[in-house]
This record gives sequence, C-alpha cells and structure tokens, in this order.
Amino acid sequence: MPPASLSTAPDQARTPADVATELAQRLAASAVARDQAGGHAAQEREWIRASGLLTLSIPTQYGGQGADWFTVYQTVRILARADSALAHVYAFHHLQLASIRLFGNPQQQRDLLAMTVQQSLFWGNALNPLDRRTTASADGNGGYLLDGVKSFSSGSVGSDWLMISAWDAITQSALIGVVPTRQPGIEVQADWDAFGQRQTDSGNVHFNRVPLTAAQVLQAPAHQPSVQATLRAQLAQMILVNLYLGIGEGAFEAARRYTLEETRPWMASGVERAIDDPLVQHRYGQLWLCLRPAAVLADHAARELDRLFQQGPQVTAQQRGELAIAVAEAKCLAHTAGLEVSSQMFELTGARSTSAKLGFDRYWRNVRVHTLHDPIDYKLKDLGRYALDGKVPDPSPYS
Amino acid sequence: MPPASLSTAPDQARTPADVATELAQRLAASAVARDQAGGHAAQEREWIRASGLLTLSIPTQYGGQGADWFTVYQTVRILARADSALAHVYAFHHLQLASIRLFGNPQQQRDLLAMTVQQSLFWGNALNPLDRRTTASADGNGGYLLDGVKSFSSGSVGSDWLMISAWDAITQSALIGVVPTRQPGIEVQADWDAFGQRQTDSGNVHFNRVPLTAAQVLQAPAHQPSVQATLRAQLAQMILVNLYLGIGEGAFEAARRYTLEETRPWMASGVERAIDDPLVQHRYGQLWLCLRPAAVLADHAARELDRLFQQGPQVTAQQRGELAIAVAEAKCLAHTAGLEVSSQMFELTGARSTSAKLGFDRYWRNVRVHTLHDPIDYKLKDLGRYALDGKVPDPSPYS
Amino acid sequence: MPPASLSTAPDQARTPADVATELAQRLAASAVARDQAGGHAAQEREWIRASGLLTLSIPTQYGGQGADWFTVYQTVRILARADSALAHVYAFHHLQLASIRLFGNPQQQRDLLAMTVQQSLFWGNALNPLDRRTTASADGNGGYLLDGVKSFSSGSVGSDWLMISAWDAITQSALIGVVPTRQPGIEVQADWDAFGQRQTDSGNVHFNRVPLTAAQVLQAPAHQPSVQATLRAQLAQMILVNLYLGIGEGAFEAARRYTLEETRPWMASGVERAIDDPLVQHRYGQLWLCLRPAAVLADHAARELDRLFQQGPQVTAQQRGELAIAVAEAKCLAHTAGLEVSSQMFELTGARSTSAKLGFDRYWRNVRVHTLHDPIDYKLKDLGRYALDGKVPDPSPYS
Amino acid sequence: MPPASLSTAPDQARTPADVATELAQRLAASAVARDQAGGHAAQEREWIRASGLLTLSIPTQYGGQGADWFTVYQTVRILARADSALAHVYAFHHLQLASIRLFGNPQQQRDLLAMTVQQSLFWGNALNPLDRRTTASADGNGGYLLDGVKSFSSGSVGSDWLMISAWDAITQSALIGVVPTRQPGIEVQADWDAFGQRQTDSGNVHFNRVPLTAAQVLQAPAHQPSVQATLRAQLAQMILVNLYLGIGEGAFEAARRYTLEETRPWMASGVERAIDDPLVQHRYGQLWLCLRPAAVLADHAARELDRLFQQGPQVTAQQRGELAIAVAEAKCLAHTAGLEVSSQMFELTGARSTSAKLGFDRYWRNVRVHTLHDPIDYKLKDLGRYALDGKVPDPSPYS
Repeated sequence: MPPASLSTAPDQARTPADVATELAQRLAASAVARDQAGGHAAQEREWIRASGLLTLSIPTQYGGQGADWFTVYQTVRILARADSALAHVYAFHHLQLASIRLFGNPQQQRDLLAMTVQQSLFWGNALNPLDRRTTASADGNGGYLLDGVKSFSSGSVGSDWLMISAWDAITQSALIGVVPTRQPGIEVQADWDAFGQRQTDSGNVHFNRVPLTAAQVLQAPAHQPSVQATLRAQLAQMILVNLYLGIGEGAFEAARRYTLEETRPWMASGVERAIDDPLVQHRYGQLWLCLRPAAVLADHAARELDRLFQQGPQVTAQQRGELAIAVAEAKCLAHTAGLEVSSQMFELTGARSTSAKLGFDRYWRNVRVHTLHDPIDYKLKDLGRYALDGKVPDPSPYS
Repeated sequence: MPPASLSTAPDQARTPADVATELAQRLAASAVARDQAGGHAAQEREWIRASGLLTLSIPTQYGGQGADWFTVYQTVRILARADSALAHVYAFHHLQLASIRLFGNPQQQRDLLAMTVQQSLFWGNALNPLDRRTTASADGNGGYLLDGVKSFSSGSVGSDWLMISAWDAITQSALIGVVPTRQPGIEVQADWDAFGQRQTDSGNVHFNRVPLTAAQVLQAPAHQPSVQATLRAQLAQMILVNLYLGIGEGAFEAARRYTLEETRPWMASGVERAIDDPLVQHRYGQLWLCLRPAAVLADHAARELDRLFQQGPQVTAQQRGELAIAVAEAKCLAHTAGLEVSSQMFELTGARSTSAKLGFDRYWRNVRVHTLHDPIDYKLKDLGRYALDGKVPDPSPYS
Repeated sequence: MPPASLSTAPDQARTPADVATELAQRLAASAVARDQAGGHAAQEREWIRASGLLTLSIPTQYGGQGADWFTVYQTVRILARADSALAHVYAFHHLQLASIRLFGNPQQQRDLLAMTVQQSLFWGNALNPLDRRTTASADGNGGYLLDGVKSFSSGSVGSDWLMISAWDAITQSALIGVVPTRQPGIEVQADWDAFGQRQTDSGNVHFNRVPLTAAQVLQAPAHQPSVQATLRAQLAQMILVNLYLGIGEGAFEAARRYTLEETRPWMASGVERAIDDPLVQHRYGQLWLCLRPAAVLADHAARELDRLFQQGPQVTAQQRGELAIAVAEAKCLAHTAGLEVSSQMFELTGARSTSAKLGFDRYWRNVRVHTLHDPIDYKLKDLGRYALDGKVPDPSPYS
Repeated sequence: MPPASLSTAPDQARTPADVATELAQRLAASAVARDQAGGHAAQEREWIRASGLLTLSIPTQYGGQGADWFTVYQTVRILARADSALAHVYAFHHLQLASIRLFGNPQQQRDLLAMTVQQSLFWGNALNPLDRRTTASADGNGGYLLDGVKSFSSGSVGSDWLMISAWDAITQSALIGVVPTRQPGIEVQADWDAFGQRQTDSGNVHFNRVPLTAAQVLQAPAHQPSVQATLRAQLAQMILVNLYLGIGEGAFEAARRYTLEETRPWMASGVERAIDDPLVQHRYGQLWLCLRPAAVLADHAARELDRLFQQGPQVTAQQRGELAIAVAEAKCLAHTAGLEVSSQMFELTGARSTSAKLGFDRYWRNVRVHTLHDPIDYKLKDLGRYALDGKVPDPSPYS
C-alpha cells in the first residue's frame, strides 16, 4: 500500500512538478535494482497511479487536471532522471489520452476520458504503425475482429486499456481503436528483452478474434487523418525528447555528485580536489553545453505544441510542419546530449565508478535503446531540407 | 548624401529591426569590396548615423529611443549578417552609451547622453583593460593628464567621443573616463591590420598630455565597481555573441542561396539538383543545428540581461553571476556555430564558390578574428565549474 | 576437456594469429552468456592455456615461442574482438612475463620463465601502483613479509603466480616481486563487479604475513628503475590499445553483419536494402575512419616497442619518451574509436538490434570500463606538451 | 639568378627531401607577400626548375632521377608547408609526367620524358574531365583540331607543355593528348581568382583550331582505359592528400612557434607561459592527433601506390580498388586535419596573431579552396560501402 501522502488526491498547493519530484525520489531508491532485474514494476506502477499524475493531461471538464503539454513533459523529464523506463510508461499513457482527443468523436472523448479518471485507468500502447501483423476484419456492424500480433507495445503489460492499430486488408490501410486489455482473446506477452529501458513493459500483444465494437473505433480504415490528428506524431516525438533529456540530466547529476564526493584528482593534475582540475572543469563545461540547449529548445517546442494543440481543427499543415521542425531540432539535440553525457560521464568519474552497485551504465543503455525509435540521420535530413527551401516534413508516424 | 528615407528621424511605423534590415541591405552591396579594401568606411558610418539607430539604446528621457538590449542586439545581428565590421562599430557605440549609464553619476549621464542625441555623436572605444600603457596623472583638481597608447580601440577612427581607461600608478588601478576624440594631444592611428573585421577601425589611440577634467571621469581610480557596473562585461560579451551569430547566419544564407541557384549535383549523386542530395540535406541539417540553439540561447540571455539591467543598483552578485553563465552558454554556442558554418559551408557550395568575386571567405575571416576576443576554453571552464558546484565566474572585463 | 587440436603443442604450420583466431571463435560462442553471468571463466581459461599461447612471448631459450610484441598484440586484438575480458587476462599474463624480463636478474628470468613453460603457468597481476595498502616488512634476510590488500588485480582469480608490488614504509617506496597464488596467507577475492569486462577476474588480493624470499624480489625498494624497466608501462599501455581496438573491431563487424542481414531500410530512404542508403554508407565510412588510423598507429607503435625492447639496457630515455608518444597517439585513437563505434553502431542496426539475446551492448560496456584505466585528457595533454617543445612524458606507471 | 647551390645538377649527397627543404625555405620568405599579391610567380617557378626537382619522378633511363612516388610526395608535402600554391604547380607537373607513362606508348614515353629532362620543361594541366567545352575534330590523319576552353587548368600559366583532354562528339568520349603551350591558337588566361591557392596559375586555357598530331595523342577517344591507366586518379588524389597535409603541418608549426615565442598566458590561467597552460596543451594534443594519423596513412597509401605502379599492366582492378580505399582514408583524414588545424590554431595563438603581416589566415584559405576538388562526403560514402560489403569504388577521375 502506498504511503498516505501519495494515496490521496493531489494536493492543490503542490505543483505537478512537485508531485513528480517526490515520486521520482521514491523510484530512484530501487531504480538500479529494478534495472538489473528487468520485468514488470507492478508496485511502482501503482505508485504512479496513486500519485494522481495519470489524470494530469485530461481536461478538467472530464475530471482531469487540465495541464498543458509543457507541464506534462516537465513531469516526464523529472521522472526520467530517476527511472526512464517508468517515465516512458507514464508518458505513453498520456499519449494514448491525447490520441483519444485527436482521433475520437466527442462521445468517445467524453466516455473514455471520464472513465479513465473515475477508474484511475492506466493506458498502454499497441499502435506500432510499422508492424502490420494485426489485422481487422469487418463484422458487418461497424465493428471488427482483431487477429495477430503487435510488437514494441510499450506499457502493455499491466495496462487496463490499450490503444491499438490494425490492418484492414480490404482498404489496405490501418484503423485505430481502443480495447480493454484484460478481455478474452488478448494476451500480453512480457517478452521485452532489450538491454535498456528494461521495465517499459514493451512486449508483444497477441489478438485472437478480439471484437472491436463500432464505439471502440476511433479512426476507421481509409480515413485520411486531419492535420490536427497528425499532431499525435509530434506529441510522441516530444515524449522522446523529454525522456532523452531526462536521462542525460540524470546522468549528469550522478556524475557531478560522484566527482564532488568520490573522484580522486589524477596524480599528474597537481590539484587536491578533482573539481579543481582545469581539464575536468573544461569537460564538464562541454557536457553542460550539450544539455542546456537541448533543454531550452525542448521547452520552446513544448510551448509551440501547446499553442497548436489548443487551436484544435484550425491548425494548418504549415503550422504543423513548422512545429515538426522545432520538435526535430530539440530531438536531435536531446538525442546527442543523452548519448554524449551518459558515455562521457565516466571520463570524469573514473574507473571505480563502474561498479555495478552504482548502476551508472544504465543511463547509456536506456538512452541508447530509446534513441533508436526512429533514425536521427533522417531528422537531420528533414532539418536540412527545410533550411534549404522551407519544405516542412511530410506527416508520418515519425515526423 | 544619404537618401531621404535614412536622413530623417526614425519612422514611428518602422521597427528598429526594419531600419536595421534596410541599412544592412545598403551595406551588403559593397561589403565584399570594402572587406577587400579594408580601411575606414567613412560614408557607410554616415549611413549608420543617418539611420537614427545611434540613439536606439538611449533612454527616452534624454531624447533617445529607449529600446531594451534585446532590441539593440537584434539590430546588431541583422547588421552583422551583411557587414560584421560595421556591426561591431555600431554595437560598441552602444556599449559606450551603456558604460555612461553604469559608471557615470546622474549629471554625467544626463549631459553625455543628451549631447549624444543632440549632436548625433558616434562613440568609440579606448578602454582595453589588458593594455596598461596609457597612464593618468592627477592634476590636483580632480582631473588627470593622459599619456600613452591604447591598442584594439574599436571604432576609434572617425569617432566623435571616446570611452577610455588609464592606469593610475599611485593607486595601481585604472580609471574610466570620456574624451572628445578630436582634441589636441589625441592621435588615432588607423593601423588595424587583422585579416578579418577589417573595417572595425580598431586602431591604436595615442595620448599626449591630454587633460581629463573631473567631469569627464566616470569612475575614479581605486574604485571598487558596483555589481551593477560589472554588467558592462556582460553587455560587451553579448555584443560578441550577436556578432558571431550574425556572421554565421549570413554565411548560412549565402551558402543556401548558392546551393539553390548555382551548385551542380555531384556526378555520383544520382540526383538532378544539389538540394535533393541526401548528403547535402544532412549536412545542412547539421549546420542548422549549430545556429538554431545559439540563436535561441542568445535571445534568452538578452532577456535576462534586460531584466537585471532594469534592476539598477539592486542587482545582486549572484544574479549577475547567473547571467554570466547564460551569456557564456550563448557565447560558446555562437562561437562554434560561426566557425563551423563559415568553414563547412564550402562543402555544400563547391569549388566554384571560392571565387574572390563572391567573397564568401570573409565570413570565416571575420568570425575567426572576432572570436579571439577572449578564449573559449576559459568560458567552457567557467561553465564546468558552475555546473560542478554552482560557483559563478568572478567578475572581470571578460566574464 | 579441450579438443585434440587445442590440447597439443602449437602446430608449426599455424601462426599465432591462426591459433588466436580459432580460440576466439570458441570463446565467441559463449561470450554473450558469460558476459551476462560474470564471474570466473574457469573452463575458457583452460582453453587459453591449452592453446599454447601462454608461452608466446617467452624467449625460445627458455622453451617459449619467442614471438615479438607485435605478434603478441595481434593475438590480443583477435581475442578481444570476441571476448575482451579473457583477452585482457591473457594479455596481462604476458605483461607479467615481460616484467620478469625487465625487473628480474638473469637467474630469476631463467627460473621463472622456464618454470612457466614447464608447468604451463597462468600469471596474474597484483601490482596496482596507486594502491599502497599492501606493505612489505623486511625480514632481515633480504626477504619481506607482505600484509594488506591490492585492488584491480586483473587475472588474479584462478592464477598460478602473481606479480605484486608492496609499499616499504622505511624507504617510502615500492618493491616488486612474485608469489605463488595458492600459498597460505594469500586470499583472492572474486569481487570484481564492474558493468563491463566482467570476466577479467580483477578482484582484491589479500595478503596476511605472506613471506617473500629474496629470490622472489625482482626489484628492491628504493631502487631507481632503469630506462629499460620503465618500458613496462608502455607494454601495458599497448595492451590497452589493442584491447580497445579489438573491441571496436568486434563491434564494427557485428554491426556490419547485422546491417547486411537484418536491418530494414528506413521507410523514407527509398532504397530496398539498408546498405544502399547513402546516409548508412556515410556513417559507416565515418566509423571506419575511426578504426583504421587507430589500427595503423597501433601497429606502428608495436614495431617501435619491439625495436626498443630488443635494445635491452641500451635504450635511452629519449627513445623511451618518443615511444611513449607513439603509444599515446595510438591509445587516444583506439580509446575514441572503441567508444564511438560501440555506441554509434546502433544508429546503423536499429531498434531490434538491442535485444539482450544479441548482447551488442557489451562492446560499449567493455570498452567504457577498460578505457578508464588512466584519463585520456592527460594523454592528450602529454601529446600537446610534446608537440609544443619536444618534452617527452615523465616515466610513470601510466606514461 | 638563383644561387649556385640551386642552379647546378642535384648534389648526390643531398636527398630530394633536402633539396625540397632548402627550396621551401626560399619560398617561405615571400609566401605571405605573394599570397596577398596573387598572380603568377614567375621567378619562384624558375627556382623550382633550377632545383632539379622537376625530373624527380622521371625514370633514370630517360635521364631522370627515378624517384618513387613516396619520395615525390614527400617533396610535395615539404613545399606545401611553406607555399601550397607552388607545391601544387610542382606536384601537377609530376602528375602530367605520370600520365605520359600511363597513357603513352613506349615511343611517346621516351620522346616526351627525355625531352622534359633535356629542355628542363615545366608541364601544366588542362585535363579537367568535368569540363567538356574543349572539342576535338578528327583531321583524317590520326590527328585532331582542338577548339574551346578548359577551366581549372592548374599550372597552365607559364607552362611549357600541357596535358589536355578534349571531347570527341562522334564517339561521345574524351581523348587525352599533349601540346606545347606556346603555340599559335592556345591562349592561357591568367584569370584564376579563388580566395586561396592564389598562385596555382589555374586559369582557363582557350584553344582555337589547335592541331594535335597523331604522335601527340596519348589516349584516343572511345578507348577504354586499362586498369593501369586508371591509377592516374589515385596519383592525383595522393597529391591532394599531401598538399592538405603539408598545409596542416605548416599551420601547426606556425602556431607552435607563435605560442612559444609570442602568446601571453591568459589572465585566468595562473601560469607564466602559455605553453604551461593545461588547456593549451590539451588542444595542441588534439590537433596533433588530427595530423599524425593523416601523415601515417598518407605514407602507407604512397607505399601501396608505388607497389601497384611498379606492377605496370599486371595491376588488377581489385588491387587498384583497394588502393583507392587506402587513398580515400588518407584523403579524408588530411582534409579534416588541414581544416581543423588551420582554423583552430588561432584559439592557441590569440587575437594578435591575426595581423595581416603574419598571414596566418592563408593556411585556412589555401586548404579550404583545395579541399573542394571533390566532395569529402562521397569519399566517406565510398569508404562505408567498402566496409559494408567489400565493394571497391568504380574508377573515375575522382575515385
């Protein structure tokens, strides 16, 4: 059972960042051990649920806290500093909530979001658009039967509901829908075995003649998504940005503290404390200069995303394209910052900091696995193309 | 004679950025030729004077336009895209005006700033703190006699008034004062011969028994400058930031246009236009990612500077120190961006773009000369030290 | 029991590289599993022993194979591609053999090296010069009693003999000696728990009143080592060079094969095979350009080392210093190459290549742990100092 | 008149490197002034001629010195440290001599090479394969009439003979031939105006009904060049490698000397000499690590080139392809080293080192212009492709 302070409704005086900070501290205590164990963090996911943060992005009219995306991303970043796997599960929960708002009709939005608040639901993802092995067969009543498998289904293990996509052979296109996870015919396989982000519960979901009622179809096959709906890809990319950044910041802070408290000055340095070594200071300066611009541009992109999200259906393709550029800028910077800080930190902390007890390698492993979501070289290419003649990226699940 | 549009008072409907943009276009037309010629740009400096921008930073109570520093830096960056030497002369004029406000007493501020507006004065710099060859001998009436020489005196040639520093042997410290340039005993030597920033008029100024009255002394020797007064170094550093950035942006734009209009696709590329080459797009993306963060962090630092400048004597050492960190971040990014873009641009424009007619090498030469004002490795060291234990840089003429 | 081909004396027709290649293939089969398990690789160490490679560097006059260091390093690099932990144990065995030749008198060399051949001994290291916790008390007969502990003792677990250093309080200096590992008073603690190089058996060795006879003292306390003896540091550094390089080459090969066989082209690439993507080729070209110079300079330094080693006591301090520069060059390049290739390889292999089954993260973990032996920033500093005025590094255990 | 030591036949006791070193010292004295003046270095080209180095690569059977390419490239690199424009003119002279050996029949080789020795000829280049504006019309007797223009004709101004290519409209292919420069119908336009490599005499050559006899045709149109003949591209690329490297080495040496003799320690460094600053040493170490691998791999590639060149017609396409890889490796490293050293050197020498008197900017300008011969990104792509599946670059004028 979570302690009293977490099981109650969110305190009005505490900001979401405060709540996330406190939650992060609890997660941090066991993060190294859980990284080594892998698997499903059942208890810790209950702590997240109990924190109240699962309703953060839900509009107040449905009982949620009505926070903007800037605030949601702040909480993602804070959690990722301590535990980037659970931060991802948490963030993707909010991505599914956003998807309901972007794809669902008013009735669906009302029903699903209110239900999420009332039942304190945790959402998982089974929407990997590159995996077409799950098929949808129309049942003649506006519903479908789902069959097949979906890989990279983040947060699926232990979820209450899933956002899914399925391939409709007739129209040669995908539909998007929602299903309760614990129904007959759905089996979630906890077989995620990457070397990082180990507790993201990103297993395979198997569907065996699972009914999808018409009310559960958020976007029908052969439906050309609106510009507004394509904001989903940017919402997802911004989650990645803040995860990479959070990991980088967590690594930097771990290194900083270790250098201050443990690292011995090198024998040829002539100084008494490692932090007085000019070469140590210089390299810390370089790593700081990786993180800071990434953070500033991530915040900038989040503000832009909020502005466009609030425009609803009025958002134009050009606006959306320019947002995609701002997000791509932040993503490339956060990608590089995360990798550089988590790898170079050891030049500053030294050999003894590689003890498995400290678990400092998890920063690199986590950011390395997560940064492979989609290739950075194509983000750079998109930026270059835009810089050359102003062409914004074509909307896709990744851009 | 400048055209009518420039010789009149600033048009209320046009923003300072508009005025700077128009001025930049005029300067651009002859920038390549003047870079090759070097020397003093007498006519072009009159265009700057005629634009009205010399009063931009002066408070409205003294007849100026009362713009904030953010706006002033915007005009610096716009001018630097076209002509970074004259942009420097222009920017350092405003640095002297700021110095009057930071060092001068109310009477001096009123007198000198109002006179600047009324007489449309152009200020130059002779304050190089590392050069102690100019000495001040007390005349017994609160004034001094100046003797000696000052190097790196930007904008001194052709200036109306000079901000000077001089070394007082008795107190072993420097005073700061102002003198009219064209008085007996002052000789400005137009001997600046660096390979870049060629028209910055950064010559040596010689003083031969030049009287400095008590009213002309802004800061007496042995005077411990207030925290507020030490903002001058940050104002100066921010000028550099915006010059580096303007040069980088100018280089990027020149390259972009050349690639669009002139560059042939490489024989092995398989594309018909150079801009469709994935490797060209990718490298443009990388250069874009140098410039954008520098610009965003420069703007961020400018806003911070304005906030602290407006606090006047209430500004604290800690606030000033954190501003120095924000400025150092922007400076390192702009330094690197300027150098990378101005050197790598040629990988994208090709062999024919090296024709002296185009003058594309001037971007690298200009930014290379200017970025040597103070060493980037010490800025990185300052950032690292701050990141490690929160120690802000000690105030100095460079930090 | 090892297969016949490995249990017999080395086949004359097979080169040491052939033997190492075959051994590497056997080690590769279980490398991922053993990296995950950690601990002591008893069986695999027997395979190394059975391969005959433990006598590779021993002069033929003592029954060894008389290979030069170039050849020994080749075998180290080959083994490191498959299993860098056991490659380290193997390489450090040869470092101890070299130490006998550099520090021991003729009698000691003869006795210890012949014994190593006859008994097929495996040597371990307990000479960490930065750890002074093991003390030596003179016993009045030219021998000592050892007490205390030594950390980072690579290959100590499972070794037959140990090279040790101990601190003599009276002369305030270290002696160097050899002891049989399995004697009373010596306890080897298998407590190495770094996140990489997990099977290097680099535990703590505890000494409790362990006698060191005069015949076991290779270098007495207060003995100024000869220039020749200081070659040991360069021999050790070159082991690191070849380990880093081997890891980098192993990672590159793993990535290459995966890209060829598994990686799907990115959806926006417009090509049918990932290897036809210009951005994939370009990045592979960059990684290739990390590895190749490191390999060429490593070979160059190995040849130089052989040349000086063969000069015996005639080697001069200047020659030794220039060798240290050549080794430092190779070390910095191999350090960077190993880290870059093992981290960037994933940009080229994609998300599915992070499966723990493949174990591709072990390359980064292994090279990251091992490259912390001594700081690269001080190697760069040494190189810069030499480049500036020709000053060679002062001999130390690390330079 | 050149001094006696240069006007006589090469001294047997002096190596070509000695001769080049002495010549480089003479060229260095006026290199800054001539870089600023641009144009044709008539006198200095006579010094090159008088040095005897123009016959260095010519086989002894024709009266030359019979040096291998390794030695020729050494002289190129030595000259490039002092004057990379004249080093280029000198190197391209030898490229034309090589072309005679690769394309010419035995009679042509004998005649042209012996004539070169006897008349002390200086060859220029008019073979730019990308410029097809010069056409060849068959005259019915095995000869042709040349008409049109050739750009980027290095060393054409002041040359005695030219190597030319011309486009044959009938076969839609190019022929290669030789013509005396000072014959009617040929006009060499000294209009090279790049911002670097200013005295390479790389003008446009105009042809107006210039007869090319059958004896002057080295390679007829529609002739598929032999593998041996395609070595020319590698010979040319290796000239570039050694020019880039020479420029980088010249810049490094200039910086080093300036730091030792002139640079003041930074005020916050706490050291008395700039060379004692750890950050200065560290950056010098990094630049050193740019140059050294480039030099070692350039030497390695030169040895390989010599080996293949000596095989004559026996050289295989695969051997030639692997040479192209070795050359591409050296070229990418030298490209980067030249640019980095010539731009970063100023971080180490400081603001006063930008005086036009010193001319230190010419290193960057020279290497920047020269490195645009063909794009580095395509060299990296070639390397990556080779690394992936062993495919060697298709022979072309650039690979």
